[in-house]
Amino acid sequence: MIVVMDPCGTSAQLQHVVSMLDEMHAGYQVIDTGARTVVEIVDSNSGIDRSRLEQAPMVERIGSSGDPVLAAARGAGDCTREIPLGKTASIGGRKLAIIAGPCSVESEDRILETAHAVKELGAVALRGGAFKPRTSPYAFQGHGEPGLEWLARAREKTGLAIVTEVMRCEHVELVAGYADVLQVGSRNMHNSQLLSAVGRQTKPVLLKRGWSATLQEFLLAAEYIMASGNPNVILCERGIRTFEQYTRNTLALAVVPEVKYRSTLPIIVDPSHGTGKADLVQPMSYAAIACGADGLIIEVHRRPEKAWTDAFQTIGHEQFRSLMTGLRGFARAADREL
Amino acid sequence: MIVVMDPCGTSAQLQHVVSMLDEMHAGYQVIDTGARTVVEIVDSNSGIDRSRLEQAPMVERIGSSGDPVLAAARGAGDCTREIPLGKTASIGGRKLAIIAGPCSVESEDRILETAHAVKELGAVALRGGAFKPRTSPYAFQGHGEPGLEWLARAREKTGLAIVTEVMRCEHVELVAGYADVLQVGSRNMHNSQLLSAVGRQTKPVLLKRGWSATLQEFLLAAEYIMASGNPNVILCERGIRTFEQYTRNTLALAVVPEVKYRSTLPIIVDPSHGTGKADLVQPMSYAAIACGADGLIIEVHRRPEKAWTDAFQTIGHEQFRSLMTGLRGFARAADREL
Amino acid sequence: MIVVMDPCGTSAQLQHVVSMLDEMHAGYQVIDTGARTVVEIVDSNSGIDRSRLEQAPMVERIGSSGDPVLAAARGAGDCTREIPLGKTASIGGRKLAIIAGPCSVESEDRILETAHAVKELGAVALRGGAFKPRTSPYAFQGHGEPGLEWLARAREKTGLAIVTEVMRCEHVELVAGYADVLQVGSRNMHNSQLLSAVGRQTKPVLLKRGWSATLQEFLLAAEYIMASGNPNVILCERGIRTFEQYTRNTLALAVVPEVKYRSTLPIIVDPSHGTGKADLVQPMSYAAIACGADGLIIEVHRRPEKAWTDAFQTIGHEQFRSLMTGLRGFARAADREL
Amino acid sequence: MIVVMDPCGTSAQLQHVVSMLDEMHAGYQVIDTGARTVVEIVDSNSGIDRSRLEQAPMVERIGSSGDPVLAAARGAGDCTREIPLGKTASIGGRKLAIIAGPCSVESEDRILETAHAVKELGAVALRGGAFKPRTSPYAFQGHGEPGLEWLARAREKTGLAIVTEVMRCEHVELVAGYADVLQVGSRNMHNSQLLSAVGRQTKPVLLKRGWSATLQEFLLAAEYIMASGNPNVILCERGIRTFEQYTRNTLALAVVPEVKYRSTLPIIVDPSHGTGKADLVQPMSYAAIACGADGLIIEVHRRPEKAWTDAFQTIGHEQFRSLMTGLRGFARAADREL
Repeated sequence: MIVVMDPCGTSAQLQHVVSMLDEMHAGYQVIDTGARTVVEIVDSNSGIDRSRLEQAPMVERIGSSGDPVLAAARGAGDCTREIPLGKTASIGGRKLAIIAGPCSVESEDRILETAHAVKELGAVALRGGAFKPRTSPYAFQGHGEPGLEWLARAREKTGLAIVTEVMRCEHVELVAGYADVLQVGSRNMHNSQLLSAVGRQTKPVLLKRGWSATLQEFLLAAEYIMASGNPNVILCERGIRTFEQYTRNTLALAVVPEVKYRSTLPIIVDPSHGTGKADLVQPMSYAAIACGADGLIIEVHRRPEKAWTDAFQTIGHEQFRSLMTGLRGFARAADREL
Repeated sequence: MIVVMDPCGTSAQLQHVVSMLDEMHAGYQVIDTGARTVVEIVDSNSGIDRSRLEQAPMVERIGSSGDPVLAAARGAGDCTREIPLGKTASIGGRKLAIIAGPCSVESEDRILETAHAVKELGAVALRGGAFKPRTSPYAFQGHGEPGLEWLARAREKTGLAIVTEVMRCEHVELVAGYADVLQVGSRNMHNSQLLSAVGRQTKPVLLKRGWSATLQEFLLAAEYIMASGNPNVILCERGIRTFEQYTRNTLALAVVPEVKYRSTLPIIVDPSHGTGKADLVQPMSYAAIACGADGLIIEVHRRPEKAWTDAFQTIGHEQFRSLMTGLRGFARAADREL
Repeated sequence: MIVVMDPCGTSAQLQHVVSMLDEMHAGYQVIDTGARTVVEIVDSNSGIDRSRLEQAPMVERIGSSGDPVLAAARGAGDCTREIPLGKTASIGGRKLAIIAGPCSVESEDRILETAHAVKELGAVALRGGAFKPRTSPYAFQGHGEPGLEWLARAREKTGLAIVTEVMRCEHVELVAGYADVLQVGSRNMHNSQLLSAVGRQTKPVLLKRGWSATLQEFLLAAEYIMASGNPNVILCERGIRTFEQYTRNTLALAVVPEVKYRSTLPIIVDPSHGTGKADLVQPMSYAAIACGADGLIIEVHRRPEKAWTDAFQTIGHEQFRSLMTGLRGFARAADREL
Repeated sequence: MIVVMDPCGTSAQLQHVVSMLDEMHAGYQVIDTGARTVVEIVDSNSGIDRSRLEQAPMVERIGSSGDPVLAAARGAGDCTREIPLGKTASIGGRKLAIIAGPCSVESEDRILETAHAVKELGAVALRGGAFKPRTSPYAFQGHGEPGLEWLARAREKTGLAIVTEVMRCEHVELVAGYADVLQVGSRNMHNSQLLSAVGRQTKPVLLKRGWSATLQEFLLAAEYIMASGNPNVILCERGIRTFEQYTRNTLALAVVPEVKYRSTLPIIVDPSHGTGKADLVQPMSYAAIACGADGLIIEVHRRPEKAWTDAFQTIGHEQFRSLMTGLRGFARAADREL
C-alpha cells in the first residue's frame, strides 16, 4: 500500500502522515522520487486505518505500490500529450511523426546521405545509434561521441530532430548535449537507474518496450521517468519475445489502442525491430497507423545489405519512398496528417 | 526426405521409385494422402542417390518432410486464390469479406436478429457455433443440430453464407449438410484426423491458427486439408498465447503479409479472440485490413453483456455499424472494396 | 455460474432446481456429462438467489464454470490415486513407474527387441505409437492396427503393460482392445470430443499436457475424461512452448509439485519430448523424480540415430541402462522405490 | 565475422591483420574488450580470404560475432571452474554452495538473525539486497550503503560470504568494497555497460538470467564480464517468462545440464524467483540439484509473511531447515557434498 502525497504538500504534512503510521505500528518507508513523495507501507499490518490516512491533509490518495500510473493516467476527455521533437516538429498531435535512419551511425557521409533522403520523403526526425547495445562483446559498439557529432551535423544540414540511444547514467548529460530525444532501448527498459537519470534532465525520452515487458511494467517504466521530473515520455512498441521464429519478434500492436485508453502518453511503433524483416516493414507500418499509433520509427539505410547492424530488417531509400507514399491513405483513414 | 510423385503418375512409376530405394537399401514408407502420393525415406541412409531419384519418371521433386507446402506455394505472379463464401460472395478477391455473428447460436430468434443486422451493415457471412469447444466439461457445449437448422434458416432469410465449427470427424457430413464453410477451431488445428476429414469433402474450410502454432505448422495444417483433396482453405489469425495478460491473446498480425508472400491461400483475422476485449476489436480490425487481410471474422451479439459465451470480446450491433463505417477508408487505402 | 447436482440426485430434484431458475428468470442449460449433471447459468442475472440454490435438495455446490476440478481435488490427508498399469504394475503408489519404448512402432522385431531390453532394465510399461500425429501430411503416420498387434505380442512375451496413442473418437474401441493405457497426445489435449470418448471406456488414460496449456486447462482436460465416467487419468508434463530454442520445448517441472498440492491424480514426466535432446534426458529424469513425479515416459530405441521419428531425443538401450542405474539414488532420496 | 587475436599478440600483429583487411577492401572495426582484441568485419564482402586471415601471426581464430563463447567454452575433459565465495567457501567444486537470506536487507537486527539461522543450517553465503530494482518507482528501493554495512557486520559475526546486487556502473566500486560476490540481476542481464563494469573489478559476479534471455544471450552476457577481465562468473537460472500464470516464472531447469555441456562456468538455481511460491521452493531445489546445479540461492526470512518484498516466495527458518535436511539425500545421489 502506498500513501501518495500531493506534490504541494509540506514536510510537516508528510511528518503528520508518518506519525499516524507510527501510531498504527506500521512499517513504512518514505520514498522521494524527485517529482513525488510517497510513503510505502512495507510491513502489512491489519491495524492500518485507511480512511484516516485518506483524510489526512495533502494526502492525494492511497494506492497499491504495484499499480500506480499517476503521472499519465487518462481521464475522461483527456487528449494525448503532445511532445516536441526538436524545434519544429512534435509527436502526439494530429500529425503523424515519422522517425527514420540507420541502426548505427557508420560515418558522417552515410548519415548525411540518409538524413537528406528521409527528410525529403517526409521524416521529421533522424534515428541512428552512436552507443550501441550489442548481444556480443565482440560486435561493433558504436562510434560514441564522434557519432553524436555527425548526428548534430545532420540536424544542422536538414533540420531533422535527432533521436539517439543512451545506455548509461554517466552518459546522459553527454548524449543530451547532442540529441533532441534520448532513446532508452528495450534492453534497458527495466534499468530503473537509467530511467531515473533520463527523468532528471529535460529532453524528451523515447522509451522502447522491453522484450518481455508486460503493459503494466512498460507504463511503470515511463512512470520512473516522470516521477523523476520529466513528463515528456514517448512510448514505443517494438515487438515482444514469443515462440514465433519466422520473425525476430512478435509485433504486438494491440498495445497501441490499449495505451490510448489508459494513458495520455503518445505511442509509436518500430516495425523494423518488431518484425526483423525488411519486407514486413511496409505492411506493419500501415497496420500501426491504422490502430492509432502516433508515429513510426524505421530503420533506413542507403544500402541495407551493407548495413553494419540489422541489415535484414533495414529498408533502402526507395522502399522508404514507397512506404511513405502508401501511408498517405492510411493516415487519412485514421484522420491523421502525414 | 520425401519423394513427391506427380499426381498423374501411375502405380508402375511409383513402383519404379520404390525399386530404386530397395536397391539403395533405404527404409521408406509410401504415403497416399488422397490427392498426393509421396514416398518418405524414414531411415536416413548415406547411400541414397538423390539425383537418380529426381530423374525418375513422374517424380515431381525431392523435398523435406518437414517443409513442404506443395499445394498452395506462391510463385512469382500468382494471385491469392478466390474461394466461394456461399452462392454470391467470395474471399480472396478484391472485395473484403466480413463474417460476423455471435460466438454461440443461442436461439433461433437471436441468431435471426443478428443475421439481419449484420447483413444490413455489410457482412457477407454469418458465424455462430452449434458445436462449441469449451475448456470446461461443465460449460454449455452448443445446441448441436438444432443450432445448425437455425443457421440454415438465417441463410434462407438473409442470403448470408454460414460459417460454423465442426469438432469431430463423424460430424463432418452433418455440418457440411448445413454450412457453407466448415470452421476448424484453434483447439483442433493440430488434429490431423479432423483436417483430413474436412479435406475429403468439398465445402471450403476456415482454418484457425492454433494457440501456439508456428507459421510452418499452420501452413502444414492447411496442407493436410489440401492433401486430402480440398483446395479451398481460408486461413485465420486469431491471436497466439504469450506472456501478455492484458489481452486474452496476442494478435500477431505480421503473419498476414508473411502468408501473402508464401502462399496463395486467403487469410482473414479474428480480432475478437485475438484480443479478448470488445474495445480493441475496432482498431485491430483496421490494422488487419491495413496489413493485407482478406477479411475479418467478428463476434457480434445484440446484447453482448448477455452473450452466453465470450461476452467480454463481443460487440453490439451499433459498435459493428461504427466499425463498418470506419473500415471504408482503410479498405480504400488498401486498394480493396468493402 | 454452475449448479452442481449430487450424483445421487434424482431427475425430480434436478427439475426442482430448474424451476427455481425459471422463477428467477435466469437463462440456463442442463449439462449431463455422463458422470455428473450440472446446470450452467448462461445468462448472467443479478436476480439469482445463490443461497436459495445452495440449500435446494441434492445440490452439491455452486461453482464457477471455469474453475471446477471436482473429481480429483485434493483434500487434507488425501493420497495420490493409484492407477493400474496392466495386470501387475501401477502408477501413483510408492513405486515409480517407468514407461519406455520407441516413438513409433516400426516393426515387430524392433519393438520386441526394445521391449525385452527395457523390461530387463526395470521398465513396467512399453510405449510406442501405432497411430502417429504428425505435423506434415507427408510424414509416416504409423502402421495402424498391425502396430497394435505387435505391441500386444510384446506384452505377451515380456509382461509389460502397453501405452499407445489414440487420435480419433472412432478408434477408441480399437485401441482399447489392444492397449492397457490409452494415450491422449499433446496435440489433442484440447480435443474435448476425444477426451469424452476415452472417458466413456474403462482403460486408464495417459493425458499429455498441451504445448501451451495452462495448468487450469490441463486439469479441466482431465476433468472431461472423469466427467464422462473414467476416474483413471494419469497426467504427463512434456514441455511447453516458449521463446527458448536450444531445446525443443521448455520442461516446466514446477507443475509436478503443484499438481500434487491440487489434485489426487498421479503425474509423470516425459523428458524426451520435454527437451528434444537425448543428452538432456538423463539429468531431467532425475530432476523430475526429485520434485515428486510418479514416473517417467522415455523414448528408447535400439539405434536412436536410425529411429524413423524423434531420433534426436531418443536414447539407446545402454543410455537407458545408465539412466536407470543413476535413478536409484534419487528414488531413494525421494522416498520412492524403483 | 570476427578475427580473434591471441591475447599475447602485439599491436604490430594486429596492424598486420588490419592491413590485410584494407587490401581486401573490407569494412572492419577493431574492438578492444579489455581482455581481448578482435576485429569485426562489419561490411560483408565476398572478397575476404578467410584462410589467409587464419594463417596470419597471432590470429587465434575466425568466428561469428554472434556465437563466440571464447572464455568459458568447455573442451573434452574440462572441469567446472571453481570460484571462491568469500574466504572459506567456493562454488563449482564437489561441495554444493547454498546461498540464503532475505530479498531486501530490512534492518541490522533482522539480517543478523537470519544470517545466524542460515549459517547454522549449512548455508555458506548470505544474500540480501541493499540496492533493489523495483518495477514501481513508488516501492522501497533498498537502504543503500547502510544495508551494505549491515551485511558486512553479518559476515564478521557469522563468517558467511556476502552476495548482493549492484545496479549501476558508478556503484560497482562501492558495492565491491563490501560484498564478496556482486550480483547482476535479471533486469540488468542485457545491460552491457554494467556487465563490462563488473568485469573490470576482481570480485566474482553472480549473473542472473534475464526474463526472456536465450541461452546464447545468457552466455554472451557472461562473456561481456570475462572479456573485460574477470573470469569469475557464476550463472544463475531464475525462471523465464512464459504464458504460465500459476507461477511467477517458469523455472527452466534444462539449462543447467546444457550449460554444463557447453561451458566451464558454474551454475546455480534460484527456486524462489523461479516459482514465486514458497511451497514450490523445496521440491524445485531438489530438482535443481538432481539435474546438476552447483548450488542454490534461496530467499529466507524469519517471518516471510512480514517480508517487505517477495513475501509470497520467501520461506521461513524452519522451512529452510526442512529443505536442507531433505537435500542431503539428493546431494548424495548427485555425487555431491552439502
